[in-house]
Amino acid sequence: MYRSHSCGELRASHINTEVTLAGWVQKSRDKGFMIWVDVRDRYGITQLIFDEDRTPKEIIERAKTLGREFVIQVTGTVIERSSKNPKMKTGDVEVLVSKLEILNAAKLPPFTIEDETDGGEDIRMKYRYLDIRRNPVKDSLIFRHKVSMEVRKYLSDQEFIEVETPYLIKSTPEGARDFVVPSRMNEGQFYALPQSPQTFKQLLMVGGMDKYFQIVKCFRDEDLRADRQPEFTQIDCEMAFVEQEDVLNVFEGLTRHLLKEINGVEVAEFPRMRYDDAMRLYGNDKPDIRFGMEFGELNEVTQHKDFGVFNNAELVVGIAVPGGNSYTRKEIDKLIDWVKRPQVGALGMIYCRVNEDGTFKSSVDKFYDQEDLAKWAEITGAKVGDLICVLSGETNKVRAQLSALRMELAERLGLRDPKVFAPLWVIDFPLLELDEETGHYHAMHHPFTSPKPGQLELLDSDPGSVKANAYDLVLNGNEIGGGSIRIHDKKMQATMLKHLGFSEEEAKAQFGFLMDAFEYGAPPHGGLAFGLDRLVAILGGQETIRDFIAFPKNNSGRDVMIDAPAFIDEAQLKELNIKLDIQK
Amino acid sequence: MYRSHSCGELRASHINTEVTLAGWVQKSRDKGFMIWVDVRDRYGITQLIFDEDRTPKEIIERAKTLGREFVIQVTGTVIERSSKNPKMKTGDVEVLVSKLEILNAAKLPPFTIEDETDGGEDIRMKYRYLDIRRNPVKDSLIFRHKVSMEVRKYLSDQEFIEVETPYLIKSTPEGARDFVVPSRMNEGQFYALPQSPQTFKQLLMVGGMDKYFQIVKCFRDEDLRADRQPEFTQIDCEMAFVEQEDVLNVFEGLTRHLLKEINGVEVAEFPRMRYDDAMRLYGNDKPDIRFGMEFGELNEVTQHKDFGVFNNAELVVGIAVPGGNSYTRKEIDKLIDWVKRPQVGALGMIYCRVNEDGTFKSSVDKFYDQEDLAKWAEITGAKVGDLICVLSGETNKVRAQLSALRMELAERLGLRDPKVFAPLWVIDFPLLELDEETGHYHAMHHPFTSPKPGQLELLDSDPGSVKANAYDLVLNGNEIGGGSIRIHDKKMQATMLKHLGFSEEEAKAQFGFLMDAFEYGAPPHGGLAFGLDRLVAILGGQETIRDFIAFPKNNSGRDVMIDAPAFIDEAQLKELNIKLDIQK
Repeated sequence: MYRSHSCGELRASHINTEVTLAGWVQKSRDKGFMIWVDVRDRYGITQLIFDEDRTPKEIIERAKTLGREFVIQVTGTVIERSSKNPKMKTGDVEVLVSKLEILNAAKLPPFTIEDETDGGEDIRMKYRYLDIRRNPVKDSLIFRHKVSMEVRKYLSDQEFIEVETPYLIKSTPEGARDFVVPSRMNEGQFYALPQSPQTFKQLLMVGGMDKYFQIVKCFRDEDLRADRQPEFTQIDCEMAFVEQEDVLNVFEGLTRHLLKEINGVEVAEFPRMRYDDAMRLYGNDKPDIRFGMEFGELNEVTQHKDFGVFNNAELVVGIAVPGGNSYTRKEIDKLIDWVKRPQVGALGMIYCRVNEDGTFKSSVDKFYDQEDLAKWAEITGAKVGDLICVLSGETNKVRAQLSALRMELAERLGLRDPKVFAPLWVIDFPLLELDEETGHYHAMHHPFTSPKPGQLELLDSDPGSVKANAYDLVLNGNEIGGGSIRIHDKKMQATMLKHLGFSEEEAKAQFGFLMDAFEYGAPPHGGLAFGLDRLVAILGGQETIRDFIAFPKNNSGRDVMIDAPAFIDEAQLKELNIKLDIQK
Repeated sequence: MYRSHSCGELRASHINTEVTLAGWVQKSRDKGFMIWVDVRDRYGITQLIFDEDRTPKEIIERAKTLGREFVIQVTGTVIERSSKNPKMKTGDVEVLVSKLEILNAAKLPPFTIEDETDGGEDIRMKYRYLDIRRNPVKDSLIFRHKVSMEVRKYLSDQEFIEVETPYLIKSTPEGARDFVVPSRMNEGQFYALPQSPQTFKQLLMVGGMDKYFQIVKCFRDEDLRADRQPEFTQIDCEMAFVEQEDVLNVFEGLTRHLLKEINGVEVAEFPRMRYDDAMRLYGNDKPDIRFGMEFGELNEVTQHKDFGVFNNAELVVGIAVPGGNSYTRKEIDKLIDWVKRPQVGALGMIYCRVNEDGTFKSSVDKFYDQEDLAKWAEITGAKVGDLICVLSGETNKVRAQLSALRMELAERLGLRDPKVFAPLWVIDFPLLELDEETGHYHAMHHPFTSPKPGQLELLDSDPGSVKANAYDLVLNGNEIGGGSIRIHDKKMQATMLKHLGFSEEEAKAQFGFLMDAFEYGAPPHGGLAFGLDRLVAILGGQETIRDFIAFPKNNSGRDVMIDAPAFIDEAQLKELNIKLDIQK
């Protein structure tokens, strides 16, 4: 036993007891005749005192050698602190040390182990084990554990069974790129790491498992954007004998439970929005509804005049910025520059002030009179003192652009409060999505998603219009979960794969086992998967996931702490029957 | 909502209510005017009745088409059963069907979906989704979930934090063979899948996480023996500021909790046995102590006569088989054949009967008189009616042989009762193990295990005698967990790696990050890992792990259901900068 108490445990009630603590030196103050040392562990900080009158001389001498992050063990008596610190849980007391053991010395850490550190991202990642000592990271990991435990508890109480599915599976050309694993025992063949346990969870439904979940690592070998990891964690769920309504109810229940247990927030029934409406009102399939600023489509009230930009546009659409009339001309010009940045890509922005006296002043007064502009205000919901921002162009592009502007303005206006939670179901997703580059349709969710009843016929005539039994759970403008009711009929699955461009042979090779399974009594089933990394970050009031992952990889997929990936032995390659094929 | 109740839910109290059930047809009996159908789901079986007088004609007609494993949905009224079945939870009632929907037809399954199936291992694995419908498999998976939940609950209550460590890490030549994953973004480089999260959990201790656990998949690319899987699950744990005693106490607590909550068995304090004693008394470092039959070493009482076999032996050792004197000569000859099988490898076996009158009759009466044999009986603890079996030869080999015989005899004698639980700590393991082939020592546990205090000096003079702070938890003759107190000092870790044959350069390349971490304030720490697959199997009263794994691989590492591993596209290989290198 290295300690009798943790460093976060001592209170006034412990005064006069002898205790043994172990932990890290947070800081020390040496006044010559007296030394104070703050000792830290996961649970808190306790102040130690070494004092010429009461502490043995050799202990004082040893205390003087302590540097930051030394690992020490002390024994002493809990005494009342003369100047109490109400900000610390242990602030009423200090420990008068009688014994001091240095368990391990420490080199000076390359950045300060404080809530606000002087270390940049790169150095923190290289020394992640030091970074984890900092409260923001440590607390995030503990928070993640709590969320995971609550998820498991809730689902288990609802009779869901956590089943571990395999990690060494089979590569499928569908979806994102797989990570593969050469098989030594099966020459020339490869396993793939799962992008998700999708087919396995469906087979568990065929197997009668009824309600399945798993908190599970998934892998995608994609080029990494910021905040995307090659390995990530899903809360993966599936249920048999369910319709969409059943799935939404269960996972609305789970999400509400988490918000209550973890955040202490009670949320009413989650609103639902059709995909088409989300795109029309927010230009986005994961709208942040913590605030309004809904899109107003202005084609009808703008395309009857001589303004060619609007007349030629597929869509003219605006939003009202609350209080935006207070922006100076210069500020508005900056906003126009902002939407013209390549990341947003708008060609320009038209605006219209709603003055305090109810009159309008727009950047296109030449074309539109007060009556016209009043209609703009009506449609966008602009009030006195607001600013209407209008973009125009091709529908999909202009929606994305105005959505970006909406989010940016909300951020600036402080409307994205991380303590407010606004969940939303987005439903009725399209089944297929057109790949503009190849001209081919591919599955928007995945090839196992069922179309809405009676829409199968449209697959040939108007594939883009077919709606799916697919849904996303959106929280504060982030997709935290998504799922669908699956196909459970072999014929329909074959039809679907054909429409997605699989030859009969390919379909059999890749998904034959699943389609075979459908012939042996597959129940109707559906499910959902949450992205745990993001869910935890949002519940934790953060936008970035990195501090909620113990050992994240950088944007090149590298773990800079252990320096992986790395080269391997020639002998190892030979055993695996592969060799390097580096393009010079 | 496909159902109002599950198929395991209806009781007499439901009589006269209308219910809707959904599930699989277990079997049907068609008496012409009346049809009974058993419908099954995860929760149980309910009997349905279709009856000429009370059921619409078209429903009866449809019911006649139902085959085994059809997926159906029925609505009807719960009625009292005329002949009740007390073996079924729902045996008091049946459902008089008024509506029948065939949700999915089913081909005849390739084996019967019954507790005792006619399907062999191979066909069951190919159609694992059907196999999972069988109670023994389904219940095993649910049992596994329960054990995992209890583990998490217990450890979380003890302030352990579950932290997810990465799956894409770095290959190390130490230990077993790694599975590797080519990195597309880092040309020519590879990730490795973890054999265990060992270094990461140690870094979490350096990071102040204090108490860590994780239920996590691990990977070893080893030639597969029966009951060994390339991917397996560990309950991985680590604690800071602990000595061996602390670790043993915590995980004894966990194991006792599981035995109580899962099996309803209260177990007293776990006995502890030194490794040397386990080898001496049971010839095995994971002795099954549900029964006695301890080894008696007979060198002193056998090597003073003219029997050359014993005189030339390094070890002469015997066990008393309870009641073994009842074996016929033929049965004993068969036993001798058994120990001479190549899998056991003994050259022969000497035996001695302890007759009812207290006299002895041995196969070496020529050399040993009654007084000699009385000493054999005393040392092996043989009583009247027993049989003493004696093997001799090189110590390590003969211990392994006699251990195999002991287990075999106990099995035959019914002494290995799966309902009895006999946990045991084996402690004081050697630090190093001699590889007889290469003549080199390697780490018996792993290179991060600390030697017992004061034994470091022996590393040069007598490496085989150095004891480690290493321990195994044994349950019913199976190692279910193992761990150690780790090295937390850079210098000692460097010394250890040097003794294990790592050059300074290799040590730095492979474990530099860990040794660096030790310089920044590493606390004393240690831990343990349980093999979850085996733990669950043993708690479930089984010896084989396969039914406790949803989708196991066969002995060639193949998943025969999805047919993985498989060949991948040339383009995929090219992207990964590798090509096949098949030896013709």
